[in-house]
Amino acid sequence: MPIENAFYTPEAQGPYQLHSLGRFELEDGGVIDELQLAVATRGTLNDDKSNAILIPTWFSGTHQTWDQVYIGPGRALDPEKYFLVIVNQIGNGLSTSPHNTDDSSIAMSKFPTVRIGDDVRAQEQLLREVFGIERLALVVGGSMGAQQTWEWAVRFPEKVLRAAPIAGTAQNTPHDFLFTQTLLEAITSDPGWNDGEYTSHLQVQDGLGRHADIWATMGLSTDFWKSGFWQAIPMLDGTTTDDFRQFQAGFLRALFQLMDPNALLTMGWKWQHGDVARHTDGDLAAALGRITATTFVMPIDRDMFFPVSDCAAEAELTPGAQLRVLPSIAGHFGLFGFNPEYIDEVDRNLSELLATRV
Amino acid sequence: MPIENAFYTPEAQGPYQLHSLGRFELEDGGVIDELQLAVATRGTLNDDKSNAILIPTWFSGTHQTWDQVYIGPGRALDPEKYFLVIVNQIGNGLSTSPHNTDDSSIAMSKFPTVRIGDDVRAQEQLLREVFGIERLALVVGGSMGAQQTWEWAVRFPEKVLRAAPIAGTAQNTPHDFLFTQTLLEAITSDPGWNDGEYTSHLQVQDGLGRHADIWATMGLSTDFWKSGFWQAIPMLDGTTTDDFRQFQAGFLRALFQLMDPNALLTMGWKWQHGDVARHTDGDLAAALGRITATTFVMPIDRDMFFPVSDCAAEAELTPGAQLRVLPSIAGHFGLFGFNPEYIDEVDRNLSELLATRV
Repeated sequence: MPIENAFYTPEAQGPYQLHSLGRFELEDGGVIDELQLAVATRGTLNDDKSNAILIPTWFSGTHQTWDQVYIGPGRALDPEKYFLVIVNQIGNGLSTSPHNTDDSSIAMSKFPTVRIGDDVRAQEQLLREVFGIERLALVVGGSMGAQQTWEWAVRFPEKVLRAAPIAGTAQNTPHDFLFTQTLLEAITSDPGWNDGEYTSHLQVQDGLGRHADIWATMGLSTDFWKSGFWQAIPMLDGTTTDDFRQFQAGFLRALFQLMDPNALLTMGWKWQHGDVARHTDGDLAAALGRITATTFVMPIDRDMFFPVSDCAAEAELTPGAQLRVLPSIAGHFGLFGFNPEYIDEVDRNLSELLATRV
Repeated sequence: MPIENAFYTPEAQGPYQLHSLGRFELEDGGVIDELQLAVATRGTLNDDKSNAILIPTWFSGTHQTWDQVYIGPGRALDPEKYFLVIVNQIGNGLSTSPHNTDDSSIAMSKFPTVRIGDDVRAQEQLLREVFGIERLALVVGGSMGAQQTWEWAVRFPEKVLRAAPIAGTAQNTPHDFLFTQTLLEAITSDPGWNDGEYTSHLQVQDGLGRHADIWATMGLSTDFWKSGFWQAIPMLDGTTTDDFRQFQAGFLRALFQLMDPNALLTMGWKWQHGDVARHTDGDLAAALGRITATTFVMPIDRDMFFPVSDCAAEAELTPGAQLRVLPSIAGHFGLFGFNPEYIDEVDRNLSELLATRV
């Protein structure tokens, strides 16, 4: 029986549709008998199906942030011009996930390992079967969404005209692997996690809290905290505070403590093992060399775990790619659009990218 | 009864002497009835006592790394010219600490909170009473040793002629506080820690391992891991490896799992609360404005939690201070002297600093 969790509902995340892809075989050998993807679309697909943009989601995220922060009339991602398809990644709590499946063979601790490539194959099937889309004007995503964007560009080069990986890499680095490991350990070390067989995410509040505390260090930046930038950001209860420890408790801790532990573990493992060089026997240059999309590589200047240097190294290996560094005092969590300069720079770059002839 | 731990012995750490300072009242209200400092000296104090250099230790460290990596004939810290006094910080496992005291009123979970200022006052008393030293040619320390160096320069300006804080700040930042919190939580979340009343550090191996894993992310750098730099570094068993996960297990995990959990917690709390502005009602500029020492502020270029920007901001507030950035692919753990460019640059800067007339 699925576990109730109010965070993973249309009321909390905004409306979405579930599309079933039927039986789906995973790259690591597992099977999901009826894979469902939670999908939100904006705009209208044009007659020649040339205006489709795919947006995969990041770790712990859903379609909601993209809908609220990145999409709008007059913006680069303009629903009056484009058909925007935001696909929640497998295991994120909305698409088929450990806590929400009614298939007892894959529920909770039995959920199979899922790879970035599984998401990309599922998205390709969804776009083709449900919408008849064979080519994408753009794939754009942040963090794990960037990992999926890179995977799209390498795996289906003929289907991706433009790619914008924001704050994420094509091949996960050892440093990032070790960072992700600390996030996973914060959860699995909680006795309430019970090897994945808890009956409510409330039993794992300590572990989720520690998980959130690690995010507070690596997800943001020293300047974010020192400047007091956070004092203007409402916590989950709608109030603000001038005590940074209270902000951490009322914002990141409160947010992650709403989430499902096994969902975070599924996504975390997937993130750790992201690697487009799986297509080319470990040769990253060969994998990125396959890319034919016009690509803007867009790291965030203060990102501590997808740092500019790692993203720039991949841009160097990608034919014709341009490096566009985004500014945010919030580091990796700049993705949430805390500062208008970030949003402006994303829009400027995506508009330029979408205007390129391919 | 003290707990046995072979890591905190002269056999493991090299020789040192214990000096008792008698009853020592701590800033936060606790008392250590007989405070013992573990001290290693090199060289000879000259007749006018003008050649003394104080070296306080960092988190989890002892006198040993300074002795092995930073001191030597012909080096800046030359025992043939200077009298070098390396003082192990309170609670580090060699000086009076939760696990090694035979005073049951302060043993283990009852150990009082200790501040950076307590260490500095204890060191001042030691130098005066034991060695008759009233002025220091130089105070130099890394990380928490830098915190103590800053505290010395602010608290006893007339006693410090030169100061070299390496990879550490005068006032801990919120970001660094939150980072340290994750290190503490990794230990206290281990049921084997038992609220500080374990009977062997072996009962806390899981927590110490997670603690080490967080260090692997924040203590090093993405380039350290990606470059394979670590492949040349022997693990604790003397071997090397080309698997980064094995290196993490055999090096940092193996190292921290030798240590005493309560010692790490005592030092961690102290680190979190380091702040020279306690002398000036929270006014950092006023506190640093007191400094009369010739000061070289020496952050490490890839340091993730005492980043150059935070150290540079404090250098700006320190009269006459110069910023000297040290290069290390190992980030904060560059302090261990993994790369010769780092060592050379430390020596060059300390030689120049020691040659300045004051």
